[in-house]
Amino acid sequence: MLSIFMLRDIITRSLKEDIGSGDLTTQYAVPPEASGEARIFAKQKGVICGLPVAEAVFEVLDPQVQCRRLVAEGAQVEPGCPVFAVSGSLRSILTGERTALNFIQHLSGIATKTAAWVKELEAYPVRLADTRKTTPGLRLLEKYAVLTGGACNHRLALDGGILIKENHIRAAGGISAAVQAIREKAPFTLRIEIEVTTLAELEEALAAQPDLILLDNMDVEMMRRAVEITAGRTLLEASGNITFERLREVAATGVDYISSGALTHSFKSLDLSLLIS
Amino acid sequence: MLSIFMLRDIITRSLKEDIGSGDLTTQYAVPPEASGEARIFAKQKGVICGLPVAEAVFEVLDPQVQCRRLVAEGAQVEPGCPVFAVSGSLRSILTGERTALNFIQHLSGIATKTAAWVKELEAYPVRLADTRKTTPGLRLLEKYAVLTGGACNHRLALDGGILIKENHIRAAGGISAAVQAIREKAPFTLRIEIEVTTLAELEEALAAQPDLILLDNMDVEMMRRAVEITAGRTLLEASGNITFERLREVAATGVDYISSGALTHSFKSLDLSLLIS
Amino acid sequence: MLSIFMLRDIITRSLKEDIGSGDLTTQYAVPPEASGEARIFAKQKGVICGLPVAEAVFEVLDPQVQCRRLVAEGAQVEPGCPVFAVSGSLRSILTGERTALNFIQHLSGIATKTAAWVKELEAYPVRLADTRKTTPGLRLLEKYAVLTGGACNHRLALDGGILIKENHIRAAGGISAAVQAIREKAPFTLRIEIEVTTLAELEEALAAQPDLILLDNMDVEMMRRAVEITAGRTLLEASGNITFERLREVAATGVDYISSGALTHSFKSLDLSLLIS
Amino acid sequence: MLSIFMLRDIITRSLKEDIGSGDLTTQYAVPPEASGEARIFAKQKGVICGLPVAEAVFEVLDPQVQCRRLVAEGAQVEPGCPVFAVSGSLRSILTGERTALNFIQHLSGIATKTAAWVKELEAYPVRLADTRKTTPGLRLLEKYAVLTGGACNHRLALDGGILIKENHIRAAGGISAAVQAIREKAPFTLRIEIEVTTLAELEEALAAQPDLILLDNMDVEMMRRAVEITAGRTLLEASGNITFERLREVAATGVDYISSGALTHSFKSLDLSLLIS
Amino acid sequence: MLSIFMLRDIITRSLKEDIGSGDLTTQYAVPPEASGEARIFAKQKGVICGLPVAEAVFEVLDPQVQCRRLVAEGAQVEPGCPVFAVSGSLRSILTGERTALNFIQHLSGIATKTAAWVKELEAYPVRLADTRKTTPGLRLLEKYAVLTGGACNHRLALDGGILIKENHIRAAGGISAAVQAIREKAPFTLRIEIEVTTLAELEEALAAQPDLILLDNMDVEMMRRAVEITAGRTLLEASGNITFERLREVAATGVDYISSGALTHSFKSLDLSLLIS
Amino acid sequence: MLSIFMLRDIITRSLKEDIGSGDLTTQYAVPPEASGEARIFAKQKGVICGLPVAEAVFEVLDPQVQCRRLVAEGAQVEPGCPVFAVSGSLRSILTGERTALNFIQHLSGIATKTAAWVKELEAYPVRLADTRKTTPGLRLLEKYAVLTGGACNHRLALDGGILIKENHIRAAGGISAAVQAIREKAPFTLRIEIEVTTLAELEEALAAQPDLILLDNMDVEMMRRAVEITAGRTLLEASGNITFERLREVAATGVDYISSGALTHSFKSLDLSLLIS
Repeated sequence: MLSIFMLRDIITRSLKEDIGSGDLTTQYAVPPEASGEARIFAKQKGVICGLPVAEAVFEVLDPQVQCRRLVAEGAQVEPGCPVFAVSGSLRSILTGERTALNFIQHLSGIATKTAAWVKELEAYPVRLADTRKTTPGLRLLEKYAVLTGGACNHRLALDGGILIKENHIRAAGGISAAVQAIREKAPFTLRIEIEVTTLAELEEALAAQPDLILLDNMDVEMMRRAVEITAGRTLLEASGNITFERLREVAATGVDYISSGALTHSFKSLDLSLLIS
Repeated sequence: MLSIFMLRDIITRSLKEDIGSGDLTTQYAVPPEASGEARIFAKQKGVICGLPVAEAVFEVLDPQVQCRRLVAEGAQVEPGCPVFAVSGSLRSILTGERTALNFIQHLSGIATKTAAWVKELEAYPVRLADTRKTTPGLRLLEKYAVLTGGACNHRLALDGGILIKENHIRAAGGISAAVQAIREKAPFTLRIEIEVTTLAELEEALAAQPDLILLDNMDVEMMRRAVEITAGRTLLEASGNITFERLREVAATGVDYISSGALTHSFKSLDLSLLIS
Repeated sequence: MLSIFMLRDIITRSLKEDIGSGDLTTQYAVPPEASGEARIFAKQKGVICGLPVAEAVFEVLDPQVQCRRLVAEGAQVEPGCPVFAVSGSLRSILTGERTALNFIQHLSGIATKTAAWVKELEAYPVRLADTRKTTPGLRLLEKYAVLTGGACNHRLALDGGILIKENHIRAAGGISAAVQAIREKAPFTLRIEIEVTTLAELEEALAAQPDLILLDNMDVEMMRRAVEITAGRTLLEASGNITFERLREVAATGVDYISSGALTHSFKSLDLSLLIS
Repeated sequence: MLSIFMLRDIITRSLKEDIGSGDLTTQYAVPPEASGEARIFAKQKGVICGLPVAEAVFEVLDPQVQCRRLVAEGAQVEPGCPVFAVSGSLRSILTGERTALNFIQHLSGIATKTAAWVKELEAYPVRLADTRKTTPGLRLLEKYAVLTGGACNHRLALDGGILIKENHIRAAGGISAAVQAIREKAPFTLRIEIEVTTLAELEEALAAQPDLILLDNMDVEMMRRAVEITAGRTLLEASGNITFERLREVAATGVDYISSGALTHSFKSLDLSLLIS
Repeated sequence: MLSIFMLRDIITRSLKEDIGSGDLTTQYAVPPEASGEARIFAKQKGVICGLPVAEAVFEVLDPQVQCRRLVAEGAQVEPGCPVFAVSGSLRSILTGERTALNFIQHLSGIATKTAAWVKELEAYPVRLADTRKTTPGLRLLEKYAVLTGGACNHRLALDGGILIKENHIRAAGGISAAVQAIREKAPFTLRIEIEVTTLAELEEALAAQPDLILLDNMDVEMMRRAVEITAGRTLLEASGNITFERLREVAATGVDYISSGALTHSFKSLDLSLLIS
Repeated sequence: MLSIFMLRDIITRSLKEDIGSGDLTTQYAVPPEASGEARIFAKQKGVICGLPVAEAVFEVLDPQVQCRRLVAEGAQVEPGCPVFAVSGSLRSILTGERTALNFIQHLSGIATKTAAWVKELEAYPVRLADTRKTTPGLRLLEKYAVLTGGACNHRLALDGGILIKENHIRAAGGISAAVQAIREKAPFTLRIEIEVTTLAELEEALAAQPDLILLDNMDVEMMRRAVEITAGRTLLEASGNITFERLREVAATGVDYISSGALTHSFKSLDLSLLIS
């Protein structure tokens, strides 16, 4: 998933964004021949995610630099734990430092939050999922961090699944018209999901035999009724206003998936620092 | 700052990331001639930031779509407040919706947090600043959101200022060697800042007559002493472990700038939604 | 689907490929102020596909040029039928001519072949589908031409559906292991399809409850048996060695889909020419 | 011609087109450490073309993968003949398979058709040539396949030769005005060719002393007369409605070149398959 | 030649190069609504070249800005002469100013030098030509400036003509082998030129019947002999150590072309300035 | 500064610009297996600059090619001096030759001119600096050549320093308004410079306490008065109409910096040639 082929562009852009015309401080203060080793340490407890990205940062910037993972991707770490080592040209290490850290901090922040939510749900058969509410430019990496944290992915992009919302239904002239139009044209390799906000809409949606139904912004009681009505005829996804506090009660309704944008748009980066030995 | 010229690339990439091979649901359920109007509403209290980006999203996706700001960029809004209107092809509105929202939510989240921190400091002459701990790919937009929230910008990239850290000093063979090498080579339009962690380093740094000194991870007492020692010979920036709770006591030490990466790496996105009328 | 936003890159590249450093003949023989009108005529009978692409070619090359469709996209035309008009700068018309024609000829060739195959199958409930055997760089356009010709699309790319082949099964250690690994990780918005070549594999595959099973390179008798065995538990797709001559007998087996790479890799371009009036 | 430097962009684009957000089936079913060897076999008789492209596909996707040609580029092969071996990470082999095959099948299809046409002409001194009627995005590769099949190339792009057509002549105000304008401005390293459709135009064109004259859509008798009239004063190229059946009679007229767009726009891909050993 | 389609990339890059993260001075000192008009004046005597490039600079940066040429492209101007007017957003004018000026100054410098050399040769039938010794990234624009100055273009790039040099000959095993290999493979729309440094090589080259022969670094006496020996059998180009002082004596030898890299690599930019009215 | 990471894009573009669809002469005359060694020699006296760029040219074109510097970057060389050796595939050497030479010739031309100007000033404490009057696309390389020649850099781009000119002042409503607006918004890591043309403006500028003042187009007498008036309160830069002849008298006024666009826009390329051994 995170091969250098898939990462090269985003890393090149991120490095250029940070470097601009040059890492002037480094290039004028550090001799080109200076070399050394540096380690990245966790300063907080959390789930480490993004080590392959850090490796790719240095591979793109300077293929001579050597990287070594000190913990496994996805590992739970404590403050002070060394997670990554990099050795080679001091200039390259210093110039790549911030970009590498920014990626790991961001992705570990998501993985850490996701892992906590997954743990909260461990007693339930429900699966936790992400949404398309991701940071522009980082969709793939953030979805990867969600997987690393133990949850699962909703569609990666608009071409990776059919999700028929209120506006589509209205424009198509009803649920069955929308579903029929899509069944005729869309790749038959994609599941069809319909978003509903009321139980009446749910009944209508069920008649169209979708693969999935998204219960949008329902309260727990209504979700419970939706599960009963559906009676296993399709998979149900609960979304909207999902908070850590509500996770268990939503899970208890019997829905198959709980999805939340907060996993990727509202989290704390995991604090890390790089020290040169 | 946020002209279409500067935004075109990042928006094109973000739209492609979300669309992939196509917004299949929309293109097969919504007729090409369907048109309409939609509004973006705030669902939380906060500072709105990113309206020019939303405009650019629709300009890039479909120049026929019309956008209208319903509040000024940087406005403080209450839940329910309509902030942005977009009208034209329903397909274009639906396809661009998520990308536009993801940008505004992200930037408004930063501006809202920044504004709260700036308010906390309003009794002090100190300026609040950001860092390079930004989300990869969004540096410029996030720095813009920090400005919108009322704080100021540290260097935009590695070429926008000289910041000499411990590793540079060691590699150069001491502070004065580092400063001298840089004075000879770096563009003379940039200020020179030196990072110090102890008062001894501060004294050494002062001798090199930099434009700025960064007090890294010092406690409040040490910062106070640093301000005394410096006695106005240079500007002082406090950084490291800055939290909302510590803001006033750090400000009270008399430093000129307080900088914090948390403004851009650990915030909650502002919740918004788009409704078609 | 074929908005200017989605087409801009491929058209820019194709124009640059054809123009290189400049359309020298035109720029030195035709005065910049010369203008005119040209029409594209069909020279063969077929299904026209690609008019939106031709429009985009001139939009990218010179936004002043005006285009007009003389038949609808997807129309069946006879030799001599005018299909497209373009007016404006003669230089722009001449420089864009070949690229516009190359696109329409290629896509109309695919749509024409597809339409003939679809017609051959009209008495059967089966759907005809394409594959990933498309021309590098033209995937999206070719899949669009297949739709225009009346068939349907298999997955657009490797991220648009799960298709488990022999090699995946072997590497994963069996069908059920492969399906389980994928169910845990892959976006739940995608259908899961398993490729089988024997009836024994079919039984094994059915046990894993996939959404689709691909019958690869089976003869007609084996397909018939496969349909019986499956008994509606999942959808069946026939692929491999599909020729026009075999279409009806394959359809008669009762499979749900017939897919063929030949639709996009082995067809005759539809002959068209541009004449300046 | 087909160095990695020249191929990197087209291959990167083609791989991204096929992979999208990821080869999900492979990345979730095949362990990262699995490795193996695969061979590409011909399933039809034909001329193999595109092995350097296949090598570049794997070089771009994963430089660790090893490739080996089992026949020479341009070799005539029989069904069942192994043509290419690739070994290394199973994930990389499976992810690159379709793209590599799509290139070889396409180019071998052109080379095979070209070789058959060249053979048909072997008794004549005429040279067979291609045109600019190529697949958008594949110009260079298709021209290379034509060379591999034994024919020769007309200009690679609009900057690689002067070809004055009816429209240029009309816009310039006659043949001699067009030729004069071009002689003054165009690089003197390019040959000048004039397209004519009648013998009257031929006489006029000869007076302008071009390097080449293109006889467009003439019947065989008229071509014969054109050869007599020209009497070696310039080279003659026959084009328009060239079919395999007409090749010899056109050649017999004594023209120097026969060019046909069908070589690159209407051919059957050569069937190949990849098997993992 | 200089359409916005051809210029967009180079101008986008050049603007980004100059702007970086933003024209900070302008965006913070000049209000967004401020508008005005500016004129570009010549500060030296010379030939103006690059006005279409300046237009494209503002078109790319801000399509609202209006441009007007005050002299024709290629005009000879005196110091103080207004050449170009631009009106609209003051921010856009100030941000685009330097890039627009840098292009015009550079191209006018080349056109001015070229015009002087062409004038020096006006009594002779010889044509003055450029070479591939151009500034990296500006090939097309510099060749255009040479045309504007009244000289003509040698090949635009390595694919726009065959030029066989000593190293090619040695690697191919002699002139006739080299020419034969190229005649078989290279597009027949290109002229073939052979570089020679002695009269013996000239004789050998003539035997291969090239379209052009380049006399490299010969003294005037040897050139005169070369012209005699060639006796019109092919065109002759003199190159190497061409200075303004030597132009007439080289022309007097009777060669057909004189080419010089100095036209594009060693010239003075024409001084211009932009004043806001 | 000139790492392969920073150079890859510009070199890829420059090679593509020169190669176009292919180095046809080389690919058809030189066998792929031919290898050899070549050396670049200086044909004039000067300062060599650009060897890392030449290395990167061959690294990008063909990583198998080996490069060796025969003099140090920045070395003063005499005519005939070998400066660079390259060995490997003859095809790659011949194809990359012109691009590599064009870079070195251009940059060495700037470094040579700069070194002469620096030498002229060696008796004075003043520093010589460049401007933004650089060749579009080559800003970074030309600024590097200026450093190599011994002078120093003004801001690299519009985001690398604040330079308030007449137009900014007028638009902002006076010097103090402009400076205040900028102090509030612009990154505090940048120095603020104000351009003045009269002594009255100088006084006004001094009141705003900028870091630098640019004396634009003043005569030597006025500069001398400006130095007196300033009395060390800020740094002074002299610019406008700086010629080699005026260098010493300007230096003698006591300004801190002399900047000149001529260093990068009006110089002679250093003549070099590549010979295959």
